[in-house]
Amino acid sequence: MKEFQLIKKFFKPLAENQKAARGLEDDVAQISDLVISKDMFVEDVHFLRADGGFKIASKLLRTNLSDLASAGATPLYYMLGFSKNKNTDEKFLRDFARGLKSVQSEFGLYLIGGDTVTSEKLFFSVTIFGKAKNGKVLSRNSAKNGDLIYVSGTIGDAFLGRTQKLSKYFLDRHFFPTPRIKLGEKLLTKNLAKCAIDVSDGLLADLQHLCEASNLSAEINLEKIPFSKNSENPLELISAGDDYELIFSTNPKNQKKISALAKEIKLDLSCIGKFTEAKKHKISLYQKGKKIKITQLGYEH
Amino acid sequence: MKEFQLIKKFFKPLAENQKAARGLEDDVAQISDLVISKDMFVEDVHFLRADGGFKIASKLLRTNLSDLASAGATPLYYMLGFSKNKNTDEKFLRDFARGLKSVQSEFGLYLIGGDTVTSEKLFFSVTIFGKAKNGKVLSRNSAKNGDLIYVSGTIGDAFLGRTQKLSKYFLDRHFFPTPRIKLGEKLLTKNLAKCAIDVSDGLLADLQHLCEASNLSAEINLEKIPFSKNSENPLELISAGDDYELIFSTNPKNQKKISALAKEIKLDLSCIGKFTEAKKHKISLYQKGKKIKITQLGYEH
Repeated sequence: MKEFQLIKKFFKPLAENQKAARGLEDDVAQISDLVISKDMFVEDVHFLRADGGFKIASKLLRTNLSDLASAGATPLYYMLGFSKNKNTDEKFLRDFARGLKSVQSEFGLYLIGGDTVTSEKLFFSVTIFGKAKNGKVLSRNSAKNGDLIYVSGTIGDAFLGRTQKLSKYFLDRHFFPTPRIKLGEKLLTKNLAKCAIDVSDGLLADLQHLCEASNLSAEINLEKIPFSKNSENPLELISAGDDYELIFSTNPKNQKKISALAKEIKLDLSCIGKFTEAKKHKISLYQKGKKIKITQLGYEH
Repeated sequence: MKEFQLIKKFFKPLAENQKAARGLEDDVAQISDLVISKDMFVEDVHFLRADGGFKIASKLLRTNLSDLASAGATPLYYMLGFSKNKNTDEKFLRDFARGLKSVQSEFGLYLIGGDTVTSEKLFFSVTIFGKAKNGKVLSRNSAKNGDLIYVSGTIGDAFLGRTQKLSKYFLDRHFFPTPRIKLGEKLLTKNLAKCAIDVSDGLLADLQHLCEASNLSAEINLEKIPFSKNSENPLELISAGDDYELIFSTNPKNQKKISALAKEIKLDLSCIGKFTEAKKHKISLYQKGKKIKITQLGYEH
């Protein structure tokens, strides 16, 4: 059973229309002006023991921060679920703490609690807390017909780092993704977007989530999708996950303001297409005006 | 390395004196009037797959609720970290959801989010949210010299259920512990206690935590500790964990009010000793006036 089906069938009834649950449709919950997200990280699924404590802790916290970014929230605190086993030595602990500390310093958040357990296979869990300006958050279900679709940064770099280990740049994009906190905050405060998601499952898969939540379809152009120069197989890259860039939608009248914002925060923001009402929840991909068949949307972790 | 040392050495610096972290000394964090606790539950450590979804989910949520009880907080919401593997069938999912639902109904809280992962060994994580009346919570560090030490219910039943499977009563105390939410709330609102902890590691071990956090020692009397009639080995029972009763301290002048509260909430509240200033952080155990040597404090999960 797919994650979405499982949640809908077994867990959604337990939310009983509580406003704080936001329909269990986003990666965040909201209690008054507090935005909260919970993530789990499993050995040999999300990380390898050989990655070492620094990289594991960094990615753990950075990817969870990306959930706050997709909601436009400002990081405040996190709680840590920490597992250890007989191989957890002082060096691993020191590196792990150093990894957390480096992310704390970069994004201004603090550890406030958690739990420690013993477990053969390691797994970690973070619950992260952010502040929603005036109680407002970006959500998945607020795109409008005709809205332009934007994406930040470049797509597929983490995949290239993971699979081809091209260079330090690509490896860093895999191990140290940059949660687009500033972008999320600015989109909200400048009133430039209401709808956003972070690219964790893949550009196509996460855009699909927006289409479903907003009850729309999307048309995107392959040549407008921002790739790093070294990339060769664009179709593979738009199905690959872990970029932690933001996809967001905006009214066409905001195009100039988006360009100005890109300059302000020194981050490329590329318009890759638009939302449409045509055939529901379907992404149409074009290359030089010709439609390309999509064979794979993305992946589940 | 013990959990307490690990937290002190590697994680406490990451809390950087943030008030919300409460020194990482309690099982809860606090953001304004929101009390938050995070727990992790590991297959073959905290539960067996054979226990089935209903029991696993029930205990998971009940033990996490106990952290709120020890803070005197009122349950509001929780987020669920859920792992599944190829053995996770529809029946397990249905039973798991039914277990959560039964606890939700009993204690009035709702699911508001979470994360789902795939993992060979199952593990679950709950982050639970409660409301602190007027921002006040019970804590571990607020016992005073001369305060009486009380404990709710009976001690060791869960251990007897786990090890001897005596009867349904004891098995239920193991699988379906009762978080003492009402007691915690009343102790706070009636201003009868400031200091409390729930018995998860064992009566002695958790009393030791209070002694250390409050910088006091304790004298307790074995014959005053409430056991179920069927219990035979009291020293074993006060070192056994998982009771989820509350230990709390109160000024001797409150004794009558505590008796009245016990009647009001229909829960035995037994005075088992008092806090003293003598030799720091040491528990002295007496039986009929004679001091008994304590060989084992309790256990870590």
